[in-house]
Amino acid sequence: MTPSNISNTNDTICAVATATGGALGIIRISGKDAITIADNIFTPSSKPHVSLAQRHAGTVTYGHICGSDGQVVDDVLVSIFRAPHSYTGEDSVEISCHGSSYILQKTMQLLIDNGCRAAGPGEYTLRAFLNGKMDLSQAEAVADLIASSSEAAHRVAMNQMRGGFSRKLKELRDHLLHLTSLVELEIDFSDHEELEFADRDELRQLAETIEHTIAKLANSFGTGNTLKNGIPVAIIGETNAGKSTLLNALLNDDKAIVSDVHGTTRDVIEDTVCIEGLTFRFIDTAGIRDTNDKIEAMGIERSFMAMDKALIVIMMYDLQRPAGDFSQFYSQVAGRLSGKQVILAVNKCDITAEIPPLLNEIVHDQDSAQFHTVTISAKHNTNIDTLKSLLVKLADVPDMSANDTIVTNLRHYEALTKSLEAITRVIEGLNTNLPADLLSQDLRECIYHLNEILGEFSSEEVLKNIFSHFCIGK
Amino acid sequence: MTPSNISNTNDTICAVATATGGALGIIRISGKDAITIADNIFTPSSKPHVSLAQRHAGTVTYGHICGSDGQVVDDVLVSIFRAPHSYTGEDSVEISCHGSSYILQKTMQLLIDNGCRAAGPGEYTLRAFLNGKMDLSQAEAVADLIASSSEAAHRVAMNQMRGGFSRKLKELRDHLLHLTSLVELEIDFSDHEELEFADRDELRQLAETIEHTIAKLANSFGTGNTLKNGIPVAIIGETNAGKSTLLNALLNDDKAIVSDVHGTTRDVIEDTVCIEGLTFRFIDTAGIRDTNDKIEAMGIERSFMAMDKALIVIMMYDLQRPAGDFSQFYSQVAGRLSGKQVILAVNKCDITAEIPPLLNEIVHDQDSAQFHTVTISAKHNTNIDTLKSLLVKLADVPDMSANDTIVTNLRHYEALTKSLEAITRVIEGLNTNLPADLLSQDLRECIYHLNEILGEFSSEEVLKNIFSHFCIGK
Repeated sequence: MTPSNISNTNDTICAVATATGGALGIIRISGKDAITIADNIFTPSSKPHVSLAQRHAGTVTYGHICGSDGQVVDDVLVSIFRAPHSYTGEDSVEISCHGSSYILQKTMQLLIDNGCRAAGPGEYTLRAFLNGKMDLSQAEAVADLIASSSEAAHRVAMNQMRGGFSRKLKELRDHLLHLTSLVELEIDFSDHEELEFADRDELRQLAETIEHTIAKLANSFGTGNTLKNGIPVAIIGETNAGKSTLLNALLNDDKAIVSDVHGTTRDVIEDTVCIEGLTFRFIDTAGIRDTNDKIEAMGIERSFMAMDKALIVIMMYDLQRPAGDFSQFYSQVAGRLSGKQVILAVNKCDITAEIPPLLNEIVHDQDSAQFHTVTISAKHNTNIDTLKSLLVKLADVPDMSANDTIVTNLRHYEALTKSLEAITRVIEGLNTNLPADLLSQDLRECIYHLNEILGEFSSEEVLKNIFSHFCIGK
Repeated sequence: MTPSNISNTNDTICAVATATGGALGIIRISGKDAITIADNIFTPSSKPHVSLAQRHAGTVTYGHICGSDGQVVDDVLVSIFRAPHSYTGEDSVEISCHGSSYILQKTMQLLIDNGCRAAGPGEYTLRAFLNGKMDLSQAEAVADLIASSSEAAHRVAMNQMRGGFSRKLKELRDHLLHLTSLVELEIDFSDHEELEFADRDELRQLAETIEHTIAKLANSFGTGNTLKNGIPVAIIGETNAGKSTLLNALLNDDKAIVSDVHGTTRDVIEDTVCIEGLTFRFIDTAGIRDTNDKIEAMGIERSFMAMDKALIVIMMYDLQRPAGDFSQFYSQVAGRLSGKQVILAVNKCDITAEIPPLLNEIVHDQDSAQFHTVTISAKHNTNIDTLKSLLVKLADVPDMSANDTIVTNLRHYEALTKSLEAITRVIEGLNTNLPADLLSQDLRECIYHLNEILGEFSSEEVLKNIFSHFCIGK
């Protein structure tokens, strides 16, 4: 449920914040009546009874939740927090109960009967934002943090949530405001010819430094998006070349976090694997082969389109198959490999080690910066580690410890792009001696777009759109 | 991982206690080093830094988890509890973090690097039991409570966890001990003929009261098992009579909690629906029809066996089909309906209201205490509520508010049965003037089996078996 007016923080909200099926479940309550409402359904075990309202913030109390019929719903722990020292900045309560769906449902019902409203997606974080506990880019990082399943994605989201990105933007904004004030001085005092203004060369230098920083941030989106969503890898090859065996070999590693992700097109199923802290997203491209069948050809075209999205293509060759057939397969796909890193995985090296001359010829013709060969046995796990190391190397992700800020959010990228356009116009204006008031307008626009990222003056609609992608309970 | 020696409570254990995929995740730590280890990986936000070891029990501290490389893993809330005032009775810590699989995994890794051991299933509750925080029957109720998805199952588990069943058993044991002391007085002073012993009639009266209570508990297992696992209902009928439409009508109710449960035989899939606080388990018996095909006949036999487990059978008749065919179908199943409640659901009443005479004849021949007729339209949801009310009525579950103790656990039922056998032997012995030492032996056996339920003198093996069915983190 999304409330009609999301900026309404007058009511007290409640939500189950844990997934179903665990040993424990957590229900969060936030709002001015959070502690009073919790007191209505909770009886502490200690005697004499001390109500939650009488307890200090930051304490945990043991007791039980009671239904209106006096039946005990569960033995629970209740933590209380008081405004402004809570996640949302409001009075808050967390009820830790047994993870039974019945108990969670029943407790939610009791809270609603006592005046709470069921929270919409991301409503706790929205309130944290509205109450000034974090800016919008930090709030957005919370959702990324929860979704992060690799070290790299986690690190980027954590840096953003803890305000690293915001600090960078605020620094930029300070520089822009300084530049604007210098430019606007010209407007305000343009009648006083005796006043000396900043040198336009100096202004341009300042603007160029800003432009460079914005451009660097905007350019990091490619990397950021890859880190967040995984590096797309396609495994292609003739039927029975061992594509799924290889995928299983890559997946069946104890250290790997494996999950199924449904792609945007329903019939393309993707697997993700975490290798050395990076997420790789394996795109299923089953079915690339020569055909006259019209319907099958459509499927193949779809596979090709999926392959086009890959940064890295693993092309499998089965040593037991005629090299001529592979050569024919290769000629079909070669045209679509430009700009991608290609790994030729020569499979079934456990059966024969002899590489056919035709294959060597194909390899010989390639650019070694883009084309790499590994001999493997997917079935016997031979050289799979080599293949993994190669994948990490080819992913070419910049060293994260360098403390660079990386943009992972499309909304931020778009705002940065607009900001970049504005500052570029400023530089052009300085070059062409544009009047100060026009320069000032572009500078203000540049600042406006940075503020957009931080969520200053964000419209209801923008906020609604952002928080609707959160999970309930956060 | 199950530890080799489960009674070893010297080490400090840690586990993720929440299911993956929520907004929040909880990691529990328990054992003598719980607070010290948590201090190693946690930095409080408040300044000056106050370590967890210096903080009061029952407090929540905000701060962050740091990896060995100094990287922040997450912003978290840490609650601390001190022995014996915790769930396990040991020093305990709960870390509430963002529900990302990476963060949970990384934090677990840090805890293990700092000296924790990953907890086995149910190990927290096992420790609570070993440390005298609860008896074995209460500990077992924790797992039932977490699994409970209906009001009735929840109420039984909650009563048991809060010690209702244990109190009953201890009362029984007190009576048995009193009886034993009276009987053993005879042994000890059998030489002193001048002493007057309790009248054997009086002893028998006492024994009979105890027998009655044990028998009542043992008999409640049928109900208890039904409440816990759901009331088994089979929907049968000719092909296309609307069986799956009816099932969907029963399932597609907002108030119903629906889940898929795989039965003991892999090919029988069951759906459960919660109606008026009771769980009904619908057994799939597709494919009951007349056939000469041998393989199909095997499938039909399997369906029949599944049907045999049902307490209630919904038999569907499609008003659009010839009554003669139904009559033939009925003659096939009639023999297997004895002892069951049968509901004849006359379907498609939206199309025709005319009930064929042949059907009326079939109904007329039945015992109205066992055979019930409802006219429905599964497709248009007509009279589905009537059918539901009938299901609840036929389930014939005793009124739970009567505060009766109900046995839901097979282990308890078996112990009670043995206990019942022993007390019955005592009564027989009293009738046949058996010597006091033999009576005493049976009385001790009766007490032994009650103690078994409470977990006094339980073997390592019994404990291992019980707690291996728990989830991790509880």
